[in-house]
Amino acid sequence: MAKDFYGELQLGILGGGQLGRMLIQEAINFNVTIHILDPDKHAPCRDLCNRFVQGALDDFDTVYAFGKGLDMITIEIEKVNVDALEKLEEEGVMVYPQSRIIRLIQDKGLQKQFFKQNDIPTAPFQLISSKESLNNASIPLPYIQKLRRDGYDGRGVKKIISEADIEDAFEAPSLIEQWIDFDKELAIIVSRNDDGDVATFPCVEMEFNPEANLVEFLISPSTLPFEIQQRAELLAKKIAEDLQIVGLLAVELFLTKDGQLLVNELAPRPHNSGHQSIEGNFTSQFAQHLRAIFNLPPGNTATRSNAVMVNLLGEAGHDGLARYEGIEEILAMEGVYLHLYGKKFTKPFRKMGHVCVINEDREAAISTARKVQQTLRVIT
Amino acid sequence: MAKDFYGELQLGILGGGQLGRMLIQEAINFNVTIHILDPDKHAPCRDLCNRFVQGALDDFDTVYAFGKGLDMITIEIEKVNVDALEKLEEEGVMVYPQSRIIRLIQDKGLQKQFFKQNDIPTAPFQLISSKESLNNASIPLPYIQKLRRDGYDGRGVKKIISEADIEDAFEAPSLIEQWIDFDKELAIIVSRNDDGDVATFPCVEMEFNPEANLVEFLISPSTLPFEIQQRAELLAKKIAEDLQIVGLLAVELFLTKDGQLLVNELAPRPHNSGHQSIEGNFTSQFAQHLRAIFNLPPGNTATRSNAVMVNLLGEAGHDGLARYEGIEEILAMEGVYLHLYGKKFTKPFRKMGHVCVINEDREAAISTARKVQQTLRVIT
Repeated sequence: MAKDFYGELQLGILGGGQLGRMLIQEAINFNVTIHILDPDKHAPCRDLCNRFVQGALDDFDTVYAFGKGLDMITIEIEKVNVDALEKLEEEGVMVYPQSRIIRLIQDKGLQKQFFKQNDIPTAPFQLISSKESLNNASIPLPYIQKLRRDGYDGRGVKKIISEADIEDAFEAPSLIEQWIDFDKELAIIVSRNDDGDVATFPCVEMEFNPEANLVEFLISPSTLPFEIQQRAELLAKKIAEDLQIVGLLAVELFLTKDGQLLVNELAPRPHNSGHQSIEGNFTSQFAQHLRAIFNLPPGNTATRSNAVMVNLLGEAGHDGLARYEGIEEILAMEGVYLHLYGKKFTKPFRKMGHVCVINEDREAAISTARKVQQTLRVIT
Repeated sequence: MAKDFYGELQLGILGGGQLGRMLIQEAINFNVTIHILDPDKHAPCRDLCNRFVQGALDDFDTVYAFGKGLDMITIEIEKVNVDALEKLEEEGVMVYPQSRIIRLIQDKGLQKQFFKQNDIPTAPFQLISSKESLNNASIPLPYIQKLRRDGYDGRGVKKIISEADIEDAFEAPSLIEQWIDFDKELAIIVSRNDDGDVATFPCVEMEFNPEANLVEFLISPSTLPFEIQQRAELLAKKIAEDLQIVGLLAVELFLTKDGQLLVNELAPRPHNSGHQSIEGNFTSQFAQHLRAIFNLPPGNTATRSNAVMVNLLGEAGHDGLARYEGIEEILAMEGVYLHLYGKKFTKPFRKMGHVCVINEDREAAISTARKVQQTLRVIT
């Protein structure tokens, strides 16, 4: 890319949610002109772009018309019309991540086959076309059934414990995966630019809200043994190189009780598991994604502080115009950074924002994060 | 302010330049709805707000119509119509900084009188109504003549060395000020919220580009003796309290060769001398300004790293559509953060962006900043 290009660069983002919003906060520093496509007229990015188009991300004509004439397109969600992106790519629009990678990652079946073909450790699995075939599955009970397409934030996933659960299983193209009794869930973010420069962020540990199946709490950096972190980094780099991706790739991993690392899922974009990088690392995941897609050298990914990220989820029982309780109290706490996502309406477990807590002392950061969780509420 | 207010807060900013732009980057985290008034249809904030109004900042009707119906107004430039702000204030719009403070600071004569009345050390001065009165000035030559109003970034300032210079002096309400043979120029930013919480950022040292009379290079924190820094902090706090300001106040100071601190000028808003706080301090000046005007507790102002800020000025001899040279090279350097201001057109010495360099080693940060200065260019 020409080095004087940024000022005139027309960048389209498919999706105008919180990831797009935080990406724009960084893109402002590059003078990029931002175009957003999102189905929601109240999308969080709506007021932060040069052009906002309200439209379906999975509709060929909508995506094609949106992208025609842009210099570059990126995504903040995988559920987009890939055929349109492929056509735009053929016509010279830079699409990062590349359409073939989005196509692969959209389909959890193809994603698993990719792992297998490239010797990337992952839980044993079997592709399933209909519920019926679960009766003679090759994976022993209990297992997880995952829809091949359109699962998101815990939706499209079922645990099949006994044969009685098969009746309630998804009747759709899916995969079943051996139930992994993991010790920890880790995430590692890697970036790759068109020159082939690859850089990983330090490994982070995640804690899930079991009710919502969303990342609720994230600790950076991980305190796992160096050897395990190094293995995770090498794995993330290998995947980025096997894919030849341009952009950011979030790699979610299980650490099993016997010390194995198994790749769970990929996301070819900034990811919830990287939000703490805004304050916790020298380069944020959003800045790194821009560096990668603009073919700039990767930034320093080292941690600047211990950081704990808390997702701010809509409170159960509240559905409607969002109000926030506890902002003043949390901003009086040490090392607390608030990020609200500009969502007008809350509903139970909707991601309404996040808080990052930094502290030289890891335990102090965790303890403040717990206080934040008890104090900050999104209600109606 | 109600604690659940942010989501619906309608915040107007008078001025849509780089300070507004960086303020918006932070305001996004508070869900604030932003309204911008700026005379330039290409203003850097144009695409980053809910409502952009092109109009004159010094016109009563324009400012009044813009502000009517908003919850709160702040400024990124002092040259605005204060009568309109005063009327809006009377009608219940929160104006921070308060209109009376903008009125005082707009007029360098009133500013100097305020210093005198409040025992704030400043260079000896005399108010001047016409050039003629310079012939029997009470301040000995050489001195500085400053227009009372509308000076900006070095405009409206003349050095009068000998009687021969009087002929070229400004023929307008002005002040003359004793020429101070200072050792260093310092700046300190202080914030105050409506509850009266006051917080200062650590003192920074500035280096000016003598040709453009603009801050070119800024080093944070200052390495001056603790006693001097403490005096500067107390002075800044005193001024914020004397003014009863709500919002941010930048205080520019001279350190004289005999160790005196003299207040040079005030700016009641985020300031060029605080840009390094984005990466160099735990709280940025922009976040602190929002905390102050929203009556939230001040954030931690401590430095996180040594930081050097370099203004990126339009290159001499280049006037037109801006192009940037050297971005890839500087982003390969350690600890370099680029902030472009989204200005379509460059002209000699126009502020087009800035770069912040952070490093644990102060000398390394300075040395990288010098390399950045040699590498990054804004041309046509």
